[in-house]
Amino acid sequence: MSDTAVTFDDIKTAARRIAPFASRTPLLWSSTLNASVGAQVSFKCENLQKIGAFKFRGALNAVMSLDDTRAKPGVATHSSGNHGAALALAARLRGIPAFVVMPENVPQPKRDAVRAYGGEIVTCAPGLKAREAALATLIEERGLEVVHPYDDARVIAGQGTCALEILEEMPDVDVILVPVGGGGLISGTAIAVSGIRPEIRVIGAEPALADDAWQAMESGKRVVLDNPDTIADGLRASLGELNFAIIREHVESILRVEEAAIVEAMKYAFSRLKLVIEPSSAVPVAVVLKGLVDLHGLKAVVVLTGGNVDLDRLPWVAR
Amino acid sequence: MSDTAVTFDDIKTAARRIAPFASRTPLLWSSTLNASVGAQVSFKCENLQKIGAFKFRGALNAVMSLDDTRAKPGVATHSSGNHGAALALAARLRGIPAFVVMPENVPQPKRDAVRAYGGEIVTCAPGLKAREAALATLIEERGLEVVHPYDDARVIAGQGTCALEILEEMPDVDVILVPVGGGGLISGTAIAVSGIRPEIRVIGAEPALADDAWQAMESGKRVVLDNPDTIADGLRASLGELNFAIIREHVESILRVEEAAIVEAMKYAFSRLKLVIEPSSAVPVAVVLKGLVDLHGLKAVVVLTGGNVDLDRLPWVAR
Repeated sequence: MSDTAVTFDDIKTAARRIAPFASRTPLLWSSTLNASVGAQVSFKCENLQKIGAFKFRGALNAVMSLDDTRAKPGVATHSSGNHGAALALAARLRGIPAFVVMPENVPQPKRDAVRAYGGEIVTCAPGLKAREAALATLIEERGLEVVHPYDDARVIAGQGTCALEILEEMPDVDVILVPVGGGGLISGTAIAVSGIRPEIRVIGAEPALADDAWQAMESGKRVVLDNPDTIADGLRASLGELNFAIIREHVESILRVEEAAIVEAMKYAFSRLKLVIEPSSAVPVAVVLKGLVDLHGLKAVVVLTGGNVDLDRLPWVAR
Repeated sequence: MSDTAVTFDDIKTAARRIAPFASRTPLLWSSTLNASVGAQVSFKCENLQKIGAFKFRGALNAVMSLDDTRAKPGVATHSSGNHGAALALAARLRGIPAFVVMPENVPQPKRDAVRAYGGEIVTCAPGLKAREAALATLIEERGLEVVHPYDDARVIAGQGTCALEILEEMPDVDVILVPVGGGGLISGTAIAVSGIRPEIRVIGAEPALADDAWQAMESGKRVVLDNPDTIADGLRASLGELNFAIIREHVESILRVEEAAIVEAMKYAFSRLKLVIEPSSAVPVAVVLKGLVDLHGLKAVVVLTGGNVDLDRLPWVAR
């Protein structure tokens, strides 16, 4: 974890740093959806980003910002999701090793993704304690740089580059909707917006079953949930400390959606937008479809954060 | 059916005519795929076109090219696939009725699509004879203009606008790969290419189970297959007369792919490109994945023709 605050300049620096490697993803929209909502809703397609998720931006910025001495031994994390794959690819592009600590019960596809991008998997017992212990040992033995999936200023700055692209392409956007898990993306988005046009509204969306960010905004205190059971597996993490501090200051509100609405929104994206998205990405889509925020007459952008999903087990297919 | 030849100017006129209504679809690519093929392969995303398929271009051009007197009674077709939905939406935009003749055994989703765009469905007995008879009666009674799904110069010119966009965005493309059913898209593509840079190679891809175009190229004679049983339901039609004449002259070759390769390519598009495509679109993707054409060092564009697929019955999901 880095303890420095994140500034708008950090995001601009990150954008220059990642430009040679990351994709500039398109903004797409559906005329049918726009007509039914009475708004102009565009989708920032981070499912089309490298490794299939926005996480590549943050991991890449962290890896590319290390000096050579610090970079040489390699980087490490204990995220088994998109951040693990993102860190593996970022490290490969830098020419350094990446180590990803994973409990032995992680599904094979997640291992395969990390390995496909050249990451080394270090297996440990299940549970956060065991993961943290395994990571600590690894760092000590090898002198690795840890890159936390969201509670890290370099990662937050990297995620903020997504909003920078949105604002370059659509300077008059009124509202940006993003999913909230650990809070890396929404923190970066909020800082990017406040550096360009602070009146743009930033709204977070989270599963009702993993509503730690909503609770934190209500109570003014960070809340940590114990492995909440939502289908949106990318949003099970609770807000990080850095993230909460940024969100308190810059984010308008956090809206919550039910599991059934997440599945419905995911299927809507497949069927109407023709885009493959993972359940986490469907959370802000559900906010739009359920009319949880009044977008009438506005220009809104929804960030589709990722498209890594098990196509053999789509949640709407009866089994 | 129109009996006039299609010229490059017709395609330019069509492009201007449809511009206010049709989407200019993006070209997307996968770095992973490019690295593995050793080529630069881009995908023209007509699955993101209105009604979810390139068919909107041709139907729209046909409808918008009618003079007011001819247009007023309305338009008709007996296609129950994407062309039916495309014609319905085109007619709605023109403010005229569209009639789509469908046998009583057509699945409900196809009826719903046509109706959703404001088309009127005329039900008949199953079989081509009954469809043609029902269509003939309808035309006589109401004085409708028939818009054939592919064997129509206005439709071919409309489909050619897709290649025009490809060439504007990527003037140095070497090869364009498209699926072949009735031949509307490949005819339009071939004429567009021959009007700009005739050395660009146009390659057709069809299911081995519906290889009438391949047979026709081999024998020099148009071949009509009787309802071939391929999963690529958009490619079951045999080449039209106008289409065959154009293809003979301008198309390099037709390549054939097996059913299993089509399903594999479709899943590849979902999992790696994060795009929802229908089986017909997967046919030229399969040509690339199976290495049926040597693309090494070349710039290729594959047209993803549509994304209308039953998400409850994806072909790779065991049931």
